[in-house]
Amino acid sequence: MWEIFRAIVAAGDTYVFAPDTPRADAHAYWFAPGVSSWVAEEDGRVVGMYKLVPNQPGLGSHVANASFMVAPAFSGRGAGRQMGLHCLDEARRRGFRAMQFNFVVSTNAPAVALWRSLGFTVVGTLPGAFRHAELGYVDAYVMYRPLEPMS
Amino acid sequence: MWEIFRAIVAAGDTYVFAPDTPRADAHAYWFAPGVSSWVAEEDGRVVGMYKLVPNQPGLGSHVANASFMVAPAFSGRGAGRQMGLHCLDEARRRGFRAMQFNFVVSTNAPAVALWRSLGFTVVGTLPGAFRHAELGYVDAYVMYRPLEPMS
Repeated sequence: MWEIFRAIVAAGDTYVFAPDTPRADAHAYWFAPGVSSWVAEEDGRVVGMYKLVPNQPGLGSHVANASFMVAPAFSGRGAGRQMGLHCLDEARRRGFRAMQFNFVVSTNAPAVALWRSLGFTVVGTLPGAFRHAELGYVDAYVMYRPLEPMS
Repeated sequence: MWEIFRAIVAAGDTYVFAPDTPRADAHAYWFAPGVSSWVAEEDGRVVGMYKLVPNQPGLGSHVANASFMVAPAFSGRGAGRQMGLHCLDEARRRGFRAMQFNFVVSTNAPAVALWRSLGFTVVGTLPGAFRHAELGYVDAYVMYRPLEPMS
C-alpha cells in the first residue's frame, strides 16, 4: 500500500498529498481510528486500495466518503471499478444514505468518467483548488450520489 | 469558548457536531496542531470565535478554510461579520489564494446571507447532507471566494 501511495502522490496529478508525504501520514490516512480500508489483489499482489469513512461527524454522518488508489502499472484494468462497486455495497450495508467525494481533480478524466458511470454527478466545482504538477491550478469537483437502502 | 460551542451544537441547526460532543473533541477542533483560532470580545467577554486552517494538505493548501461561532445571546450584532472580515484579512496575509466553506447549512439563512455579502458564492450543493434537529434532512452548501493578493 505504501508503494502505491508513494507512486500516486509522486505524480502530483490526482491527490493533494505532497510528493514527499511521510509514511506516517499515509499510514494515518488509511488506518486512523474510524477508517475502514480494503485492498484489491491480483494473484496475491496488492494492486489497489480504498477507504470508507463518514464524510462528517454527528449530524452529517449519514453521508459516506471514500478514496481510491490503483497501482499505476494496473491502471485501466478495472480495479477502480471493482473497488467502487464493492465500496458502494459496503456503504449501503452500513446504512449510509449517500456517498460524497470532496476533491476529484477535474483533469483526472478516467476518475471523473468512472464515477459518472457509477452514478455520481458533479454537485460542486472548486475553482483552481488543485495545484497540478504539470498544469498549475486546476479545478476540483465535489461528486455525489444517493444510495438506495438495501432490500 | 466551550460554553459557546455547547450552546451552538445543542441547537442542532448549524453545525454537524452532535449535541453531546465531548469537550475534548471541541478542544481538538479549535486547538489541534495547525489550527489558528481567534476570539471576539465585548467588554472583556468572549462572544464568538473563529478558526483558520488550510482546507487541504499539500497541493490543495493554497485554499483556506474557516469556521465561525457566535454566542447565541450576541447573534445579529455584527460579531460574525467582524470576525469574517478579520479572517479574510488574515488569510490574505498568510498568502491563501481563496477561502472555502465545506458545509454551510442551507437553512441557516443569516450565515448564507453574511457570506454572500462578504463575496462568497455557492459553488456546490450537497443534497440532504445535514440532519437538522427540527427540519430533518436539508441541503448543505459549499461556499467559496477568491482572495486578492495583499498589495
